[in-house]
Amino acid sequence: MSIHAVILCGGRGERFWPKSRRNWPKQFIPLYGSRTLIQETSRRIAPLCPVKRQLFVTPVELVPLLRRQVKVPRRNILGEPCGRNTAPAIGLAALTLVRRDPEAVMVVLPADHLITKRPEFLKAVRLAAQLAQENLLVTFGIVPSRPDTNYGYVHYGARIAGSRRLTAHSVVGFREKPDSATAQRYLAEGTYLWNSGMFVWRAATILKALHQFLPEFYLALMRFGKAIGTEKEQRALAQLYRRAPVISIDYAVMEKAENIAVVRATFDWDDVGSWLALARHRPMDAAGNVTTGCWFGRETRNCIIDADSGIVATLGVSDLVIVRAGDAVLVAHKTALDGIKRLLEDIASHKAARRLL
Amino acid sequence: MSIHAVILCGGRGERFWPKSRRNWPKQFIPLYGSRTLIQETSRRIAPLCPVKRQLFVTPVELVPLLRRQVKVPRRNILGEPCGRNTAPAIGLAALTLVRRDPEAVMVVLPADHLITKRPEFLKAVRLAAQLAQENLLVTFGIVPSRPDTNYGYVHYGARIAGSRRLTAHSVVGFREKPDSATAQRYLAEGTYLWNSGMFVWRAATILKALHQFLPEFYLALMRFGKAIGTEKEQRALAQLYRRAPVISIDYAVMEKAENIAVVRATFDWDDVGSWLALARHRPMDAAGNVTTGCWFGRETRNCIIDADSGIVATLGVSDLVIVRAGDAVLVAHKTALDGIKRLLEDIASHKAARRLL
Repeated sequence: MSIHAVILCGGRGERFWPKSRRNWPKQFIPLYGSRTLIQETSRRIAPLCPVKRQLFVTPVELVPLLRRQVKVPRRNILGEPCGRNTAPAIGLAALTLVRRDPEAVMVVLPADHLITKRPEFLKAVRLAAQLAQENLLVTFGIVPSRPDTNYGYVHYGARIAGSRRLTAHSVVGFREKPDSATAQRYLAEGTYLWNSGMFVWRAATILKALHQFLPEFYLALMRFGKAIGTEKEQRALAQLYRRAPVISIDYAVMEKAENIAVVRATFDWDDVGSWLALARHRPMDAAGNVTTGCWFGRETRNCIIDADSGIVATLGVSDLVIVRAGDAVLVAHKTALDGIKRLLEDIASHKAARRLL
Repeated sequence: MSIHAVILCGGRGERFWPKSRRNWPKQFIPLYGSRTLIQETSRRIAPLCPVKRQLFVTPVELVPLLRRQVKVPRRNILGEPCGRNTAPAIGLAALTLVRRDPEAVMVVLPADHLITKRPEFLKAVRLAAQLAQENLLVTFGIVPSRPDTNYGYVHYGARIAGSRRLTAHSVVGFREKPDSATAQRYLAEGTYLWNSGMFVWRAATILKALHQFLPEFYLALMRFGKAIGTEKEQRALAQLYRRAPVISIDYAVMEKAENIAVVRATFDWDDVGSWLALARHRPMDAAGNVTTGCWFGRETRNCIIDADSGIVATLGVSDLVIVRAGDAVLVAHKTALDGIKRLLEDIASHKAARRLL
């Protein structure tokens, strides 16, 4: 078998506006250190899948930006005409891989996850790849460190593979984002893992599952396959996406399939879904402030401040997220960050302001 | 007699940082409408003192900036080598005027006051100018609209001139900025006025008072007078200022002199000392927000937002002052604005950041 990485570079990163913009979303930004999240993801899997065996799925308009960040041939980049969540992206990648290598095992990695323990990560991927050879759809479950209500959970069962520390298990079931009490119970019971959104399977296996659970899309995908390499390819791709369902691979396949396994991850993991999550991975001062860029403050507590240039000064404020990025400044209370999507809708409704998205 | 305006353009406007900068302080900024505060002040007095009889006192390094804002000959601008509060500035202006016109009456106007009722203002100045002919030192007192603790007060006595609405009075005494209870009492008693910092007197009269109350400075001023028009003038001016006391004209003269009168102003007046004061003169939305520039917000209440460019977006915040100006952003709680001076000291202590002041 040969293992291929499929790095999903979609998503608008709206929660990180204004640092993340529509034409430059968060996965293209160095949120930690000096490399962008895409570059980090590519480097992390490289010992197992060198760049020539990495396939990037990204909005088509961002292909030029991607090529400035990772040195891959154009054929290793799939440009999506529009966003349709993960199932169509994964289907397109699986089709592409299976045509190049019928035995391909694919490691699906969202580009915006933070994992620092690379050796542990690679061990887990290797274990998952072995299971994938048995036509299992393998997901990675993260041992919860808090009763987080922002993740889906995987209820896991008996050990089916692995050594004492690193184990794979059968799956009792997938659980939607829980309420707070349920999340507490999951944490206490110890048989629930966060659903990480990373997967390993044979390309042929996931295509078979799509055939079973998303038959219309599968057939459309096969029709598109016939156009690959012809002059009709781009038009056929546009047609495929125009009609593709907007659906995640979890919902479309994982929650329904029987041939599922979960690897209990021993590596650290964060999907960095918000400024609050990001702040967990940056150093904090004695007053609880997490700051990047040039900041001066007095009587300032528990704030997250990110300045791309110039200076941010604060006086007598607490629990704020303050982001200065290019032509925009965001000042939000930590508890109000969920309002960002509606705020961006407000901005989108003003023609002159739209360029700021 | 001929009336000359002396427009004081000193002051660093630190309370308006970052909109006001050391090299571009608030009086050089259009804080309301389209004209800068200096331009407004010049226009306001122009019917009584055309520009050729306006004398501007400004930090010497800001003379070029001033000349881009008001079209006056260079001889109408006095460049101070350093800031020494109002007494030295007024002394220098009085000396300059008395040499050009021994009978000159001077109207001293700080450049950063907001007055909109121009006819009323001019009537009051005319009344003051008549009294000045009697060698009185005339100040303008503003009828208090609230028990403000940020102003000095003038306790006034019997009417000495004026008609029913516009009157001039003897002065019982000057009062320092009061505590809250005292300010309440002043307001209730009705015989106290805000000390506006605007004055009218004969140049010769104020020089005589400086001779009496600030004799060392007066003598130094006379020595400097001998250098005027010679090649030594600039060096002599530097020397005068190096040794000049840092003292206000109120403290140096007004609180000690006997020949004092106060005109009870019938015009509106604000010295616009802070963002909170400025906000009183800008339109407010239903949620209590006062905004300038491009702002988008949700759940935002009682904020003052000023964006010189780009966009400021807010979520779930209240009672903040948010200023985006050039390379700097300030986010301050309204109750913490007094900390700005210490914050600027922090910035000043960092060599690389100092250019942001």
